[in-house]
Amino acid sequence: MYGPDLTFLGVDRCDLTDTASYADADVVIVGAPFDGGTSHRPGTRFGPSALRQACYLPHDGSRPSLALRVDALRDLRVYDAGDVEMFAGDIERSLHALEEAVAAVATSGAIPVILGGDHSIALPDATGVARHLGFGRVSMVHFDAHADTGHTAFGSLYGHGQPMRRLIESGAVRGDRFLQIGLRGYWPEPETLSWMAEQRMRSYEMTEIVARGLDECLTEAYAIAVDDCDGVFLSVDIDVVDPGMAPGTGTPEPGGFTGRQLLDAVRRCCYELPIVGVDIVEVAPPYDQADVTAYLGNRVVLEALSAIARRRTGIPWDPHQPLLDGR
Amino acid sequence: MYGPDLTFLGVDRCDLTDTASYADADVVIVGAPFDGGTSHRPGTRFGPSALRQACYLPHDGSRPSLALRVDALRDLRVYDAGDVEMFAGDIERSLHALEEAVAAVATSGAIPVILGGDHSIALPDATGVARHLGFGRVSMVHFDAHADTGHTAFGSLYGHGQPMRRLIESGAVRGDRFLQIGLRGYWPEPETLSWMAEQRMRSYEMTEIVARGLDECLTEAYAIAVDDCDGVFLSVDIDVVDPGMAPGTGTPEPGGFTGRQLLDAVRRCCYELPIVGVDIVEVAPPYDQADVTAYLGNRVVLEALSAIARRRTGIPWDPHQPLLDGR
Amino acid sequence: MYGPDLTFLGVDRCDLTDTASYADADVVIVGAPFDGGTSHRPGTRFGPSALRQACYLPHDGSRPSLALRVDALRDLRVYDAGDVEMFAGDIERSLHALEEAVAAVATSGAIPVILGGDHSIALPDATGVARHLGFGRVSMVHFDAHADTGHTAFGSLYGHGQPMRRLIESGAVRGDRFLQIGLRGYWPEPETLSWMAEQRMRSYEMTEIVARGLDECLTEAYAIAVDDCDGVFLSVDIDVVDPGMAPGTGTPEPGGFTGRQLLDAVRRCCYELPIVGVDIVEVAPPYDQADVTAYLGNRVVLEALSAIARRRTGIPWDPHQPLLDGR
Amino acid sequence: MYGPDLTFLGVDRCDLTDTASYADADVVIVGAPFDGGTSHRPGTRFGPSALRQACYLPHDGSRPSLALRVDALRDLRVYDAGDVEMFAGDIERSLHALEEAVAAVATSGAIPVILGGDHSIALPDATGVARHLGFGRVSMVHFDAHADTGHTAFGSLYGHGQPMRRLIESGAVRGDRFLQIGLRGYWPEPETLSWMAEQRMRSYEMTEIVARGLDECLTEAYAIAVDDCDGVFLSVDIDVVDPGMAPGTGTPEPGGFTGRQLLDAVRRCCYELPIVGVDIVEVAPPYDQADVTAYLGNRVVLEALSAIARRRTGIPWDPHQPLLDGR
Amino acid sequence: MYGPDLTFLGVDRCDLTDTASYADADVVIVGAPFDGGTSHRPGTRFGPSALRQACYLPHDGSRPSLALRVDALRDLRVYDAGDVEMFAGDIERSLHALEEAVAAVATSGAIPVILGGDHSIALPDATGVARHLGFGRVSMVHFDAHADTGHTAFGSLYGHGQPMRRLIESGAVRGDRFLQIGLRGYWPEPETLSWMAEQRMRSYEMTEIVARGLDECLTEAYAIAVDDCDGVFLSVDIDVVDPGMAPGTGTPEPGGFTGRQLLDAVRRCCYELPIVGVDIVEVAPPYDQADVTAYLGNRVVLEALSAIARRRTGIPWDPHQPLLDGR
Amino acid sequence: MYGPDLTFLGVDRCDLTDTASYADADVVIVGAPFDGGTSHRPGTRFGPSALRQACYLPHDGSRPSLALRVDALRDLRVYDAGDVEMFAGDIERSLHALEEAVAAVATSGAIPVILGGDHSIALPDATGVARHLGFGRVSMVHFDAHADTGHTAFGSLYGHGQPMRRLIESGAVRGDRFLQIGLRGYWPEPETLSWMAEQRMRSYEMTEIVARGLDECLTEAYAIAVDDCDGVFLSVDIDVVDPGMAPGTGTPEPGGFTGRQLLDAVRRCCYELPIVGVDIVEVAPPYDQADVTAYLGNRVVLEALSAIARRRTGIPWDPHQPLLDGR
Repeated sequence: MYGPDLTFLGVDRCDLTDTASYADADVVIVGAPFDGGTSHRPGTRFGPSALRQACYLPHDGSRPSLALRVDALRDLRVYDAGDVEMFAGDIERSLHALEEAVAAVATSGAIPVILGGDHSIALPDATGVARHLGFGRVSMVHFDAHADTGHTAFGSLYGHGQPMRRLIESGAVRGDRFLQIGLRGYWPEPETLSWMAEQRMRSYEMTEIVARGLDECLTEAYAIAVDDCDGVFLSVDIDVVDPGMAPGTGTPEPGGFTGRQLLDAVRRCCYELPIVGVDIVEVAPPYDQADVTAYLGNRVVLEALSAIARRRTGIPWDPHQPLLDGR
Repeated sequence: MYGPDLTFLGVDRCDLTDTASYADADVVIVGAPFDGGTSHRPGTRFGPSALRQACYLPHDGSRPSLALRVDALRDLRVYDAGDVEMFAGDIERSLHALEEAVAAVATSGAIPVILGGDHSIALPDATGVARHLGFGRVSMVHFDAHADTGHTAFGSLYGHGQPMRRLIESGAVRGDRFLQIGLRGYWPEPETLSWMAEQRMRSYEMTEIVARGLDECLTEAYAIAVDDCDGVFLSVDIDVVDPGMAPGTGTPEPGGFTGRQLLDAVRRCCYELPIVGVDIVEVAPPYDQADVTAYLGNRVVLEALSAIARRRTGIPWDPHQPLLDGR
Repeated sequence: MYGPDLTFLGVDRCDLTDTASYADADVVIVGAPFDGGTSHRPGTRFGPSALRQACYLPHDGSRPSLALRVDALRDLRVYDAGDVEMFAGDIERSLHALEEAVAAVATSGAIPVILGGDHSIALPDATGVARHLGFGRVSMVHFDAHADTGHTAFGSLYGHGQPMRRLIESGAVRGDRFLQIGLRGYWPEPETLSWMAEQRMRSYEMTEIVARGLDECLTEAYAIAVDDCDGVFLSVDIDVVDPGMAPGTGTPEPGGFTGRQLLDAVRRCCYELPIVGVDIVEVAPPYDQADVTAYLGNRVVLEALSAIARRRTGIPWDPHQPLLDGR
Repeated sequence: MYGPDLTFLGVDRCDLTDTASYADADVVIVGAPFDGGTSHRPGTRFGPSALRQACYLPHDGSRPSLALRVDALRDLRVYDAGDVEMFAGDIERSLHALEEAVAAVATSGAIPVILGGDHSIALPDATGVARHLGFGRVSMVHFDAHADTGHTAFGSLYGHGQPMRRLIESGAVRGDRFLQIGLRGYWPEPETLSWMAEQRMRSYEMTEIVARGLDECLTEAYAIAVDDCDGVFLSVDIDVVDPGMAPGTGTPEPGGFTGRQLLDAVRRCCYELPIVGVDIVEVAPPYDQADVTAYLGNRVVLEALSAIARRRTGIPWDPHQPLLDGR
Repeated sequence: MYGPDLTFLGVDRCDLTDTASYADADVVIVGAPFDGGTSHRPGTRFGPSALRQACYLPHDGSRPSLALRVDALRDLRVYDAGDVEMFAGDIERSLHALEEAVAAVATSGAIPVILGGDHSIALPDATGVARHLGFGRVSMVHFDAHADTGHTAFGSLYGHGQPMRRLIESGAVRGDRFLQIGLRGYWPEPETLSWMAEQRMRSYEMTEIVARGLDECLTEAYAIAVDDCDGVFLSVDIDVVDPGMAPGTGTPEPGGFTGRQLLDAVRRCCYELPIVGVDIVEVAPPYDQADVTAYLGNRVVLEALSAIARRRTGIPWDPHQPLLDGR
Repeated sequence: MYGPDLTFLGVDRCDLTDTASYADADVVIVGAPFDGGTSHRPGTRFGPSALRQACYLPHDGSRPSLALRVDALRDLRVYDAGDVEMFAGDIERSLHALEEAVAAVATSGAIPVILGGDHSIALPDATGVARHLGFGRVSMVHFDAHADTGHTAFGSLYGHGQPMRRLIESGAVRGDRFLQIGLRGYWPEPETLSWMAEQRMRSYEMTEIVARGLDECLTEAYAIAVDDCDGVFLSVDIDVVDPGMAPGTGTPEPGGFTGRQLLDAVRRCCYELPIVGVDIVEVAPPYDQADVTAYLGNRVVLEALSAIARRRTGIPWDPHQPLLDGR
């Protein structure tokens, strides 16, 4: 919607109104240029465009991962369906349009990868997948500084602070299969935390992560995610990273991950778990410096796709292996 | 809504739910922190906060104009009612809330001065005033790079490209008392221009303004504005100024006014015409440099208020008079 | 070359290696992403991408001019040939590749419009056209803060300070049909000015422009341009505009045009003269603020194309005509 | 002083000239908008305003800490006394005025929390507290990239490089209860380091911190701080954090803490030690990106207050406890 | 003081403590890196460094003016004495040190050109010259948005809003030979304006300038300046230019000159009048974009020097002459 | 070449054409202001100027390291030879000129420290040293996000993606003594990785570094570096650091080192190994924020020099020693 029509790093285009155009897809990328649900700084409407472009290499539909020894954009069949039309001023209509798009992708058997947009979109993203796989059959791995479990904001049930509550309320995702990693700061208030506890959500605040170590927390969380669920939706809010390293976002909360930690956590998630959907949200280009946040978001997408591709090879992966061994 | 609660340069606060709090007002300032109707770059939700603060002088509720020899913030009774709650994701509800606020001010006999926000708000702004003075009794002086007379956008009747059409359709403002000044560029398309011509709007594109001179165009326009109307609503889109001088806006169109020209035009408008409402819109702080666009917007408000105050003195004003003469 | 492959505001693509793909063209846009000839701040390699995208309207291949009442992108047959491969580290090879591309367009009968890039490219741009129309048969209208008539720089005959000298030396353009408008500052030194005088160039420094008026200077210059020449090449260096309004450039020289003045001068040039080629150079996005310089450059291209389209209608154009008259 | 009059995240206002207005205070916030002592980049005069506002949540005087399970702004009685008038051009008068303000707060029994301003203010800040608690009875925990123990600079005893020397010379703080954490770089020179050693200061350079681990260093330092002293003053120079993550500061020294490390260190300090005063200095908004440094500074204040509040509950705190346990 | 030691565009260095080093000087440049008198945004301490460097041409001590046909840096004997040490925190000592430096230059018979720094420095600048030429024998041409005639600010007689009052009070400059050009906005208040009127100052507010034309106002003002005075001090506050074109300043007031107007006005001033001193103040690099304000300030200096050099040739200058005529 | 002529933090100047001027040098700094080999964002031509100036301390030729207890700029004899003339548009000529300069320094027995510029310069840098010490006798420690072992780019053998391949092909550096640390991302493609493996290069990708720990990898790599080689060339591409902390670079790849890690790794390298040459490349000021990347690059140089100086003292260094012990 914003700027020229281009695909993620040059992958092939598909048309969601023409199911044949993505019938053989492993992954379909969908742009969700929506910031009408943002409670503070807007700008994520330019996220899809930035995430598609933020790379210094040719937009040639190929990205061989040094680390994982796959070329996700070639080893998988990846299409980009372009942006869903989402009018900032009408959140209900916009989220509905996105849910339909995601559901169409999921129904085709492909993994939807949604480029946000603000975090409001997690509601249609995960709902669209759950409509295909079954309500309650998809667990959620959610990297974020914020719980996004508010009841209402500005008098609306919809917005970037509330999607996770709506997902649990509707039954699309089970509360006890909701894994939140990276929370911190001064929100939400105790009442909402109580509601979260009642839902048996598992939320890793940074204090626990620092005290126990990120790896241990991830191991624990990922085990929960695959317990009696058929697939995992991965939702990455870029603000899980410290704003000192990822300034281009709307509600920055100091004290977060490094970019390296996020990439490694996403890699483990997508390599170890059966991913059925991904979104990457809250990249707000107007607040970015030299596009570093958009670059990070682009790499989150590539890391996820590369790990999915590596998982599909069935060949075990050893992070200790030197780069040039076996080349 | 965004950031701390403060008033325009320190004027007194009033409460729109308490009519007594502004019963003696000459002017009531209302913040409209809404960018849900923006078709391109968002950020005007931070406009009200920026417009209230962009000044290097103390926020003491006093601003003696060197040029006009009045202190508008003291010579007039000016209150700031704070921001109307406007959720970006629900444009209809938001515009309705603003219309009620503006109507309350107008009904009290005060002049509402609305700090936008995107230009969607011109619809509730002028409608709110017309509800008090009578539909068709208020003419519009509209400084802008864009005509804002679109039919729909993103499937919505509401948005920052359509308010002027809605105002004419509803009869709130007569098409033949609609004066547009500063238009340029490549929008709207011929069909919309034909509709505008049918309404007998008078739109001064920059070519005509350069060819004839701005002063002559203003003289002509202002004469139309007071012909068989009871009051004039002044709507100033900051993008009427060249983006090279006012970069902090969402839909920049090169080739516009200088800041000086806008200030002089606003001064003449408010000194010569019976102003019944003012809005200043499309200041988008995320795209600004050193706040220069916010400063300009702040000065547009002060220029308007100063000219209104000077007009009320009844003492003729001579722009040739040296600053220190008669001091 | 830099970033995704997209066309100017969505016009159709053509392929310079396939003459059939642009056989019916009126205009072919060519990107020249080259900043290897820059003596100071680089970054113009991102100029073509920025100039193609800098617009808030849909990239739909249509831009109806309010002022000129034509839709240049539709009324003319406009193609975008994409970028010529130009390696910053090898200026001679790069300029040669561009010259071949421009010559191919000119030979087809279309007007080449080259998006720079630094001003080094004016050499291949005008040479490519002159190879088709005849050396000495093309006059040059050159808007710039700088004369660009240096002998050598950094030991090279090629670079953004020397193209105009090379063009005159080769005979591609006659010195006495070389019109420079907007010069100012402290370069070149007297020896080069003497050489320019010997070539009988006509260079309008800002002092003369202010003293006599821009319109009078343009009238005089444009008359020279069509005296015994078959066509006019228009070369617009964005730094002719004051850096206070167009900061995104490499060698900013204060005291220049307003953006409005440049747009009007380009319009007159392309409406009044038989244009055979255009380039727009020295837009350097890394130094820009909120893309205002790129927006201006985009509008220079549209203004040129719109004026060419209007000229071809044969219908006289009156700048005094109100926008809505005759709609 | 700079901009509108507002309080830290909306806490209640008090008036230092009216002791009754803060008689029941646990904490009084004081703004010190002074950058006249800065040796390099100025701008910290805007620090108090930025630190008060840098938050995306409502300014409602409530901030429930996810980590510490207290709402410091409600569990403690926190007032904001506004800014002390400090003229950049007269450092002695300015520091004196601040010292009086801090002493007034300390005398009331409340903890002063001073928002800088450059680090010159540490002299009046800690002196003001020591006047109440006794010279030599307050130890100092000082997070900083720089020792700030210079003798003179620009011919002045006062400035942001010298406060720690003045504090030890006057006896306000004992040299052997001066704990500096995070030093690095190329200043001061050996003579000053010798003076520091003579005072028996304990300064942890980053090399030692990396070699031994930050936690071990803090444990050691904090033990010294409470040995034969009655209270601890915490002085946080934001430049202890790496400038790559906190660019908005005046004398950036690469190689520092992450934001996460600083927040955790401040939390431990204020939870484990008897804090009697806090300052946070050297946030320079003109050099910030998207306010990330101001956000970090705001969170340093909240972290300190939350830990103080938690300490006062007397309920032990376990960083390994999951967020939702016991909710 | 800030950054490396370099001279204005590479002119020779001199040492103010060694009068022989500038005995033959026509002009001596002095840096005044002081922003301790600024009431709002600081940063002008970096002005001298920025003004010396802001040029894309080699720093070779030569700048042939296209307009004036002189090379001021060669035709005049220009030295740069470097920066005076000025500590922001001690305005009285700093201004005194500068006054001594300026007086030393003036006494040598050279014209001091002071690179600020905030406008506080106009007091020592003009006083230093008057000490040589006689109190009351130097008139002042003062380009500025602000009158700078305040009585006190922050309890100080010194600061960037008060120098002009101090100059008149001391008798260094006669009130009735004080020409202010470009004033606008909302400061000072009526009492100060009355004081100014009593002094018989002549202040041209932008309204009068627009109404009468800048050229006419300058002609009038310049005639006053040479009436019964022996020399003219030119003080240029960069904020006389519209902040939309010169954002890098501390107290921006919209509605000012274009850069072109300032350059032309400075040229006329220095060509027509007997200049005995110049300062250029209020360039604040932290707020600049792509150095455009520093570039403008650099060109103001060059324009002044070039006009002085041209005046000294005794050869009449005609602004209508084409650039290449007579070369 | 760009801007004023100044030396690294005020060290003495030397002249490469006069061998006597640096006959006693331990270190000679050489500027390589070249970005003609950059494949994406340019700007490193301003790297040498930025690296020389990025410090808040006086430019006095002294920098006592807190950590290493040496003053490298005084304990070593360090000269700055200024910039080599390198024209962006002619990479072959430019690299040749640099190679001659580096060889001259190496031949004198001094350590060349080259300030880039883009990474193209590693070819002449290491070749220049190898010409003196013998081809194959110098090993390479190479910190970088990228392998820079491409075959050609844009049809050229030279450029910032290919220098390491050229060095191995020529024999200047042995492939099996080529240590690459910090690689990551999606380049180069498998064919190039195979070529690297064939050369027996040892490349540490971030995955291995995270899995094994940076210290262990460095220990292993440094042991290889001194095995049967006479000296070590250290090449530091600033993009080895995460772009979130070092945004001022041309080809940012998320997931890198912290600044602290780089400084420590460089320190160990230069303290433990016999360094014969150093370059620091890819600092691109136009994309930097508040100069943080330039500051980091400046500190990389100082860290390297300090460690070299400390190594030469022969006194063992213990990172656990407190700062003030033994002072």
